[in-house]
Amino acid sequence: MERLDTPPDVVIRRLPLYARSLRYLLQEGVHSVSSQELGERINVTAAQIRKDLSYFGEFGKQGIGYDVQKLLSHIEHILGLTQEWPIILVGTGHLGQAIARYEGFRSRGLRLVGLFDDDPAKVGQSVDSMLILSNEEISRVVQEQGVKLAIMAVPASCAQDVTDLLVAAGIRAILSYAPIIVQAPEGVWVRYIDPIAVLHSMTYYLARYESNLF
Amino acid sequence: MERLDTPPDVVIRRLPLYARSLRYLLQEGVHSVSSQELGERINVTAAQIRKDLSYFGEFGKQGIGYDVQKLLSHIEHILGLTQEWPIILVGTGHLGQAIARYEGFRSRGLRLVGLFDDDPAKVGQSVDSMLILSNEEISRVVQEQGVKLAIMAVPASCAQDVTDLLVAAGIRAILSYAPIIVQAPEGVWVRYIDPIAVLHSMTYYLARYESNLF
Repeated sequence: MERLDTPPDVVIRRLPLYARSLRYLLQEGVHSVSSQELGERINVTAAQIRKDLSYFGEFGKQGIGYDVQKLLSHIEHILGLTQEWPIILVGTGHLGQAIARYEGFRSRGLRLVGLFDDDPAKVGQSVDSMLILSNEEISRVVQEQGVKLAIMAVPASCAQDVTDLLVAAGIRAILSYAPIIVQAPEGVWVRYIDPIAVLHSMTYYLARYESNLF
Repeated sequence: MERLDTPPDVVIRRLPLYARSLRYLLQEGVHSVSSQELGERINVTAAQIRKDLSYFGEFGKQGIGYDVQKLLSHIEHILGLTQEWPIILVGTGHLGQAIARYEGFRSRGLRLVGLFDDDPAKVGQSVDSMLILSNEEISRVVQEQGVKLAIMAVPASCAQDVTDLLVAAGIRAILSYAPIIVQAPEGVWVRYIDPIAVLHSMTYYLARYESNLF
């Protein structure tokens, strides 16, 4: 593939949504889709889809649309999902256990290989037949299994310490559920799942709507 | 306040992060903060913070910085968090129960007032002493309590039906954990919590990093 412009992060973040929508289409037995139809499913314009995909080469044919399976394979390749990424989860409270039980984390390029907690009462218990290990074993598991990805479902008060531990162990990408922004060195990606912040941004619109400012 | 430009959504989404950081500062006993210091805590530049806040008026003084409590009050006012928003949760699987138990949903402008599930085996059970009601009661509860906000923790396969039900009941803002994009009419905001999509956007960077493209 010829060298193209570097795609902005917002484009990279949309690719998994395209991929998932294409998987749903395949499940429905649809093998060809226009950018218009694909866009309607994910509330993106057809022009946006074409522009996003143009960063990665030529896909689809004018007037024919995309071959669903081919486009899905392309996007999975771009996202690095043709390989399986081992992933660990730190924090096994209510949320951590729900995450560990979520089947989505076991599929599509991801494989949960370790659960960790710093609470001695939890270490040795298991979640869906996966044993909870002590945080002290993070480094060993990460190195033995070549883990680069971690999910952090810990309280805000220990999120920075756990981040430091993960980074020292060799983790390069962290998905954090802790309600605090952590500091990580260059070359380590941290993303946040932050439902309260999302809800608080929606109350802005609700409040304005209620005062008829819309 | 004089009429200023309409702030873009990306600014509205950052405001809850500013507010939370200011709350942490108060807890630490810090009463004055520069845009530089505030920015360092949330990985945003000082210039970005000043620009974001400029949409809403004049805050802080040159060389003195922001009064933490005052700025927090301003932002909470902007976000509509000076009032309490009743919120309901639909779907009480592992994830729904973890959400229902999360204390964050009971504080800072939000009050969980109803849990719903369409599984007859779950209806009548309770989570942290809150009774699970049938989805058939959503409309009644939403109307009686004037609920505008809902969290949806249901499988992708029923997310659209639940969305339609919520919208018909009068819900105006939905935070969805279902891994699918739903359709909602104008004037209804839907936001997504989508950990798999986030992880799949991070594997892009990991894959490129591993092939030394960075």
